[in-house]
Amino acid sequence: MTTHFDYDLIVLGGGSGGLAAAFRAAQHGKRVAMLEPGELGGTCVNVGCVPKKAMWLAADLSSRVTLAAAMGFDVPTRPTLDWKELVVHRQGYIANIHASYLKRLDDTGVVRVPRKGRLVDAHTVECSDGIRISGEHILLATGAHPQRPDIPGAELGSVSDDFFNLCSAPERVAIVGGGYIAVELAGLLQALGSRVTLLVRGERLLERFDAELTAQLAENLRHHGVQLHFNYRLRELRRDGDDVIAYGHDGPAEPRFDQLFFATGRRGNSAGLGLEALGIAIGDKGEVDVDDWQTTAVPSVHAVGDIAGKVGLTPVAIAAARKLMDRLFGGKPQAKMDYENVASVVFSHPALGAVGLTEQEARERHGDVRVYCTNFRPMVQALADGSQRSLFKLVCVGEDERVVGVHLLGEAADEILQGFAVAVKMGVTKAQLDDTVAIHPTSSEEIVLMR
Amino acid sequence: MTTHFDYDLIVLGGGSGGLAAAFRAAQHGKRVAMLEPGELGGTCVNVGCVPKKAMWLAADLSSRVTLAAAMGFDVPTRPTLDWKELVVHRQGYIANIHASYLKRLDDTGVVRVPRKGRLVDAHTVECSDGIRISGEHILLATGAHPQRPDIPGAELGSVSDDFFNLCSAPERVAIVGGGYIAVELAGLLQALGSRVTLLVRGERLLERFDAELTAQLAENLRHHGVQLHFNYRLRELRRDGDDVIAYGHDGPAEPRFDQLFFATGRRGNSAGLGLEALGIAIGDKGEVDVDDWQTTAVPSVHAVGDIAGKVGLTPVAIAAARKLMDRLFGGKPQAKMDYENVASVVFSHPALGAVGLTEQEARERHGDVRVYCTNFRPMVQALADGSQRSLFKLVCVGEDERVVGVHLLGEAADEILQGFAVAVKMGVTKAQLDDTVAIHPTSSEEIVLMR
Repeated sequence: MTTHFDYDLIVLGGGSGGLAAAFRAAQHGKRVAMLEPGELGGTCVNVGCVPKKAMWLAADLSSRVTLAAAMGFDVPTRPTLDWKELVVHRQGYIANIHASYLKRLDDTGVVRVPRKGRLVDAHTVECSDGIRISGEHILLATGAHPQRPDIPGAELGSVSDDFFNLCSAPERVAIVGGGYIAVELAGLLQALGSRVTLLVRGERLLERFDAELTAQLAENLRHHGVQLHFNYRLRELRRDGDDVIAYGHDGPAEPRFDQLFFATGRRGNSAGLGLEALGIAIGDKGEVDVDDWQTTAVPSVHAVGDIAGKVGLTPVAIAAARKLMDRLFGGKPQAKMDYENVASVVFSHPALGAVGLTEQEARERHGDVRVYCTNFRPMVQALADGSQRSLFKLVCVGEDERVVGVHLLGEAADEILQGFAVAVKMGVTKAQLDDTVAIHPTSSEEIVLMR
Repeated sequence: MTTHFDYDLIVLGGGSGGLAAAFRAAQHGKRVAMLEPGELGGTCVNVGCVPKKAMWLAADLSSRVTLAAAMGFDVPTRPTLDWKELVVHRQGYIANIHASYLKRLDDTGVVRVPRKGRLVDAHTVECSDGIRISGEHILLATGAHPQRPDIPGAELGSVSDDFFNLCSAPERVAIVGGGYIAVELAGLLQALGSRVTLLVRGERLLERFDAELTAQLAENLRHHGVQLHFNYRLRELRRDGDDVIAYGHDGPAEPRFDQLFFATGRRGNSAGLGLEALGIAIGDKGEVDVDDWQTTAVPSVHAVGDIAGKVGLTPVAIAAARKLMDRLFGGKPQAKMDYENVASVVFSHPALGAVGLTEQEARERHGDVRVYCTNFRPMVQALADGSQRSLFKLVCVGEDERVVGVHLLGEAADEILQGFAVAVKMGVTKAQLDDTVAIHPTSSEEIVLMR
C-alpha cells in the first residue's frame, strides 16, 4: 500500500540547514514545502556568522590601519568609523544573500509557506492558518535563540541579536558569558570604540578549546583594553537613569554600563511544534533528541542544525542536512554526518581556530601524548613594532605521532585551518607534516616547521 | 686507512641552504666550517623573500586602507607612504635575522671563514688568502644572482637586488620578464606609487602555473593599472637625459622610463669555484649538476639551493640541506629531498598559490582529468564594493578523483595553501575534501565546497 502525501519533504525553518535540505531534496527530484522560512538564512545570515564576520572584518581593517600608520603610511593611528555606513554595506550584503536564496528556492520549485507550523501526526503539519499539509518526511530546522538568565532585571540586558541593531558603539559595555559569542562581541565592541567588561561565570574562556590558547586569548583581550572578571556570578540587574547596574555575588562593586549583553547560551526553537505529543523528547536546552542519523523517535521526523543540539555551527547544519537528504532521497542509505574533527574558528582578534582534540582531551583518551608548540611574532607585526604574537599547537598521539589536534591562535588562523582540518581527518602524522615543504614567508609554514 | 680532515663539512655560502646544512651537521655533532658567509641568509633574507614580503605587506596594508575607506572609516582612499620609514622597519627586521643567525652559528660552534673559496681537490678548499682547509664533505650553497640579457645598453637596466635600494617609488617603471619576480615587482611598484609597464617575452605570465589563473592574474595587474605587453622582444636600451628608452622588435614605440628592471632569470654562482677542473658539470644557467641525492660527479661534493638549479625556493634549499645532512651524518642513508608536490606562492595582489600539477600537465600525464573551479568575491571585497575576485581550482585524476593540483588566486591564498599542500602530498581525494566540514565564513571553505 502506498499512501499519498502532499509533499515528499516538509521543512520547518529557512535557516542554513533548512535551505540546504530543501535544495538537496529538490536536486533529488523531490517535492518540497518550506514552512516558517522567516528571514532566509536564519541566525547565520541575519544575526550570526555573516554580520558578525562583517563587523570582524571592519575591526580587522581598523587594526590594519594602525599597522599601516606604524609602518610609514600617512593614516591615523586609530581611525574613526562611520558605523551607520558600515551597517549599510553589511545589510546590503545580507540583502544580496536573501535575494539569491529566494531565487534559488524559486528556481528549484520549493513551495514557501510563510506560516508557523505544528506537527499533528508523524506526517502532518498544521499551519497557523489551520490548513494541514502532509509529507513523507518532516524536517525540523527552526534553529535556536539567545537565552537570558533567570535573574531579577534580566530584561534590562540585551542579547547578541541586539548587537546587530546598534548604529554606534555604546561607551561602556558589559558582556556576560565566556563562550565564543561573548568573546567575539567583546573583541568587536572594544575594537570599534566601546570600553568592554567581560563577566565570566567560569574560571576561563571557551571551555571547549585548548586551555593554553584560551589563556593567551584572554591576555590578548586584556591587551586590547577589555576588563575581564572570572568566577563572576551575576545576581541582578537594575536601571539607574540611562545606566544598567550589575550586581554580582562577587566581582567589581556595582559597575555601571550603557549596555549589557547576555551571551549566556541559546535555546532550541522547539516550543509550540507539537513534538511532545508525538513522543519526541526535548532536552533542557530546548533541543530535539535525534539519533546519529538526525532522526527523532518518530521515523519520519528529523532535525538538523541548532534545534538538533549537537554542534551549533552553520556548516555542520548544512552537511547534516545534505547527508540526511542523500540518505532519504538520494539512494545512499549509509549517508551520515560525521561529528568527529569538525573544525571551528572563533573570530577573536586575532582569530582562534581548532580542529580535533585539546591537549587535555588527548591526555584523557590516549596515554601517550606529545605536544608541539610554536610562539612567534608574524612579520607584519614585527615590521610595525606590534606586540601581537601567534601561538600554534599540535597535539599528537601514539608511536607514529598521529596529529589529533591542531590549535591556532594568531594572524590568518581563520584561513590557515581548513587545509589542516582535511589532513587531520585523513589521519596525518607529524612526520607527514615534516615532509611537506614550507611556503615561505607565511604564518602557515610554522605548522610544518615545528620541532 | 682513515684520512684526517680539518672538518667534517665545509659549506660554501651563508644563505638559507648553507645555514640549514651547517646547523643540522652541527646538531649531528660534526665540525663545520662556513666559507663565503656573506650577508647571512643569502638572497632570501637580504634581497629576496623577506624584504619582498615586507614590501608586499606594505602594499597589502595600503589596499586595506582603501577598503577601510570604502567601508566607512575616516582614512584616505589612497594613503601616501613614507618609503624611507618602511625601509628602516624592513632593514631592522633583517638585522634581527642576521643577529639571530650569527648567534646560532656561534652557539653551535660553526667556524666562519669570511673568505672566498675554490675547490682544489675532492676534499680541499683553498681560501682567497691562500690557506687550504680540508673537509670530508664539501657543500656548495653559494646561490645565484640576477642576470641581464645580452643586448646593447643592458647596463642601463637594474635588477631585483636594486629594488631593495630604492627609497621612493620611481614614477615610470618598466619591468622586463614574465616570471614570478617580474610579476611581484610589477605589483609592488604599482601599489606603492609607480606607473608600471611589464614587458613580457612570451605569450603569458608565469608559465609554470595554471594558465587560467595566470590569465586572471594578468587581468588583476591591468586592473591595478599595470600596462602589459606580451610577445615583446627587447632589442636595446638607450639613455636620454635621465630617461631610459626601450627599443623592441615590436611592442610600444620607444617608451621612456625612469627606471627599468630586468627580471629575466638568474644564474648559479658557480664561477671561480674550480668545479670544472674536478669534473663537475655546470649547466648553461651556471647550475651545478647534482643527482637525486644532491651530490655532484665527485662523491664528496654536494650542492643545494639555487646553485643546484632544481626548484629555486628557500624552503626547498633548507629541506634539501637537512635531508642531505641526515644522509651523510645522521644515520639516514635513504634521506632524500622529494621534489614532487612542492607548494609555492607568488606574492601578487592578491597572491597566487599552487601545489601539484596544472590542468594542462595533468591532461598530459593522465588521460582522465576532472577540474573543479570556483570564482567568488570575498566578503571583505563585497562589503567595500571592491571588484577583486578569487579564483580557486582543483585538478583531479582517476576514478577516485585524486587531487593532483590545487591552484588558488585570491585573498589569503598565501596562507590557505599550506594545509592543502599537506593533504595533496597525502593523496587526498575529492571525496575527502567534500567530507571535511567547512569553516564559515572564510575563503578557505570554498575549497571543500566545490561541486
